[in-house]
Amino acid sequence: MSRFFSSKYAALEAYVPGEQPRDQKYIKLNTNESPFPPSPKVTEYAAREAGRLQLYSDPDSTEVTRAVAEHFGLSPRQVLLTNGSDEILNFAFMAFGDAEHPFLFPDITYGFYEVFADLNGIPYETIPLREDWSIDYKAYCGAGKNIVIANPNAPTGLSLPLCEIEEIVRTNPDHVVIVDEAYVDFGGESALPLIEKYDNLLVTRTFSKSRSLAGARLGWGMGQESLMQDLNTIKYSTNPYNINRMTAAAGLAAMEENEYYLQNARTIIATRDRTADALRQLGFAVTDSRTNFLFVSADWISGGDLYRELKARGILIRHWDKPRIGNWCRVTVGTDEEMDAFLAQVTQLRKEVLTNG
Amino acid sequence: MSRFFSSKYAALEAYVPGEQPRDQKYIKLNTNESPFPPSPKVTEYAAREAGRLQLYSDPDSTEVTRAVAEHFGLSPRQVLLTNGSDEILNFAFMAFGDAEHPFLFPDITYGFYEVFADLNGIPYETIPLREDWSIDYKAYCGAGKNIVIANPNAPTGLSLPLCEIEEIVRTNPDHVVIVDEAYVDFGGESALPLIEKYDNLLVTRTFSKSRSLAGARLGWGMGQESLMQDLNTIKYSTNPYNINRMTAAAGLAAMEENEYYLQNARTIIATRDRTADALRQLGFAVTDSRTNFLFVSADWISGGDLYRELKARGILIRHWDKPRIGNWCRVTVGTDEEMDAFLAQVTQLRKEVLTNG
Repeated sequence: MSRFFSSKYAALEAYVPGEQPRDQKYIKLNTNESPFPPSPKVTEYAAREAGRLQLYSDPDSTEVTRAVAEHFGLSPRQVLLTNGSDEILNFAFMAFGDAEHPFLFPDITYGFYEVFADLNGIPYETIPLREDWSIDYKAYCGAGKNIVIANPNAPTGLSLPLCEIEEIVRTNPDHVVIVDEAYVDFGGESALPLIEKYDNLLVTRTFSKSRSLAGARLGWGMGQESLMQDLNTIKYSTNPYNINRMTAAAGLAAMEENEYYLQNARTIIATRDRTADALRQLGFAVTDSRTNFLFVSADWISGGDLYRELKARGILIRHWDKPRIGNWCRVTVGTDEEMDAFLAQVTQLRKEVLTNG
Repeated sequence: MSRFFSSKYAALEAYVPGEQPRDQKYIKLNTNESPFPPSPKVTEYAAREAGRLQLYSDPDSTEVTRAVAEHFGLSPRQVLLTNGSDEILNFAFMAFGDAEHPFLFPDITYGFYEVFADLNGIPYETIPLREDWSIDYKAYCGAGKNIVIANPNAPTGLSLPLCEIEEIVRTNPDHVVIVDEAYVDFGGESALPLIEKYDNLLVTRTFSKSRSLAGARLGWGMGQESLMQDLNTIKYSTNPYNINRMTAAAGLAAMEENEYYLQNARTIIATRDRTADALRQLGFAVTDSRTNFLFVSADWISGGDLYRELKARGILIRHWDKPRIGNWCRVTVGTDEEMDAFLAQVTQLRKEVLTNG
C-alpha cells in the first residue's frame, strides 16, 4: 500500500479469482468455464472486427443490445451490456447503495458482493444459509434493504423457485432486488417474467458460462427502463466504451446461434447429473445443482486435502479456506472425458486414503 | 432517474463521448482515432484468441504487461493494464481522492476528469488555462492537492516540457500527480524518466491513439510499485478480468510491431503540420499541436457554425458548446486524403461565407 492510498480503502480486501494457470497442464474444473468452444460464427464475427480496431466501439453496443432484448422480449432500453457481469453488479452496488441504503445477501454466495459493498462504502448484512445450504427466502421478505441473490446460488448450486424470488421482490418495494442469474441456463428458474411487474428488480446475466465467452468479458442487466437508465448513467460516468468491438461482435454471434448453446447446456446438465450420482457412490455429499458445477463434500477426506490431492494429480477444483464451507469443494462440470478422468482420480484417491486410514 | 438512484449521484453529469455515427458515411475527424488500421499481426493474434473465448483471460495480463514494461525499461510491477485509459484514470481518482484529498486540474482539459471526481465524491478545483491555452505550470507547484494534467493537453494540443512537469511533481511530494499521456507519441515529452525518482507520479497511456486500437479498449498506467499496487487492489475489487483475451493479444502484437506505429505517428505529424499551415492561410488560429488533432478557431465563422456546416458536408469534427472554447473546434488528423477533403470543404465554405457576408 502506498502512503497515498485513500483511508476509505484501508480495510478493503480484493476479490481473489480462481487460479488461472497459464501452462494449461491441468484439467481445469475450478472457474466454471464452459468446456465447449464458442461457435464458429463467434470466432468469425470477432476476427472480422479485429481488422478495424482503430475505430472506437459503439458505446451503446446497439446491435448486441438489440439482439439480447429481442431474445428476451424486452425493449433495448431495458437491457445494459457490460464488461462481464461483474461490471453490471458493481454498477448496481454503486447506483443503489450508500450509507442509508445497505445491502443484504446470504453469508455463502458469490464472494464479490461483499467486495463491491466494501469498495463502495456500503454497509451490508448477511443471512446464513440453512444447514442444507438452501436460502431461507422468508428472511429476505420485507427486509427493507437492497438485496442481491445469486439464483442459482454459488458455490452451493441450489436454486430458488420463481414464486419465492417474487415474494422477496414484492415485499421489498422500496429497495432494489438484484437476481444474479449467471448460472440460470443450467436448470434455474429465471426472474425475467417479473420485470414488467416490478420496478425494483434487476436481473443480471453473463455470456461467460453457458455461452462460452468467459474470455471475451460480456455480461448484462435487465430491468425496467428507469432502473437501467441509472446504471447507464454510471456507465457513462465510468467507461462509456466499456465493451470493445470484438466482444460486441462475439456476443451478437452468440445470440444468433442460441441453439448451439442450449445444446451445450443440455450436455453439461447430463454430465453433471451423471457425475453427481457417481460421486454419491463414492461417499460424497452432493447438493442438487442447477448450475455447471457441483458442490461436494466427502466423509473420507477434508475439502482442503481433496483440493490439494487432485491438484497434485493434475486436476484443479476450487476450495475456500473459509468458515462453514472449508470442508466443501466446487467442481466445474467439464466434458464427459474430463469428468471421467476426475472420477478416476477421485476413485483412486479414495482407495489410497481408505487403505492408509 | 429511478426512485432508487443514490442521492450521491443526484448532480452527476455523465461524460458525453464524441458522435459515433454507425452508418460510416462521414469523414470522421471527431474522436481522435488513428486513420491507420492495426498491423496485420494484431489482427492475427486477436483472431487466434477468438477461437478460445470459453476460457477466462489472464487477470494479470502477464504477457502484454511484460511487453510494455520491457519496452519502457520498467518492471512489470510498475505497469497496470486496464480497459482503456479511462479505467486507469478512474482507478486513480478512486484510490487517491476523497473528501480530504481533492483534485486539481485545468479548466479546459479532458472532460472526464470532472466526471471521475463527481462520480467518486471527490472535491476538485480547476485552474484556468492562460488566454493562449497554455498551462500555467507554476499555479500547480506546491498546490497541496492531487493533480491531473493531460500532457499534451486536450483539446488544446499544447504540451508542457519535462522540466515543468518535474517541478509540479517535485513540489507536491505528498500528493499524487497524474500525467495523462494519451497523445504523447505525436510530439510530447514524456514524464517516464521521472518515475524512478518520484513515488507520487502516475503516468497513463492508451493504445487508442498512436497504436490504432481505440476499438480494442486498452490503456495502462506506470508508476512506482507501491502506487501501482493500490491501483491493482482497486482493479481486483472492481473487475479482475477487466481485459479480454483478444484485446490482450492485440496489445501484445502492437508492442511487438512498434516500428509500424512509430512510422504512422510520423506520418500523422507531417499531415498535421501541413494541415495547420493550410488552415492558417485560411484565416484560422491554430495552436501548436503536439497531438493527432488540431485546435482551431476562425475569424470568419463561429465554432458552432463550422461544426454544423462541415457535418452537413459529410465531415465530422468536434465542438463543445462550453464557456471559453465555444468558438473553437477540434479536428482529428486523418489521412492526407481526408485532410485534403477537409481543407477543400473549408475553402469552399469560406468562399461562401465571405461572399454572402
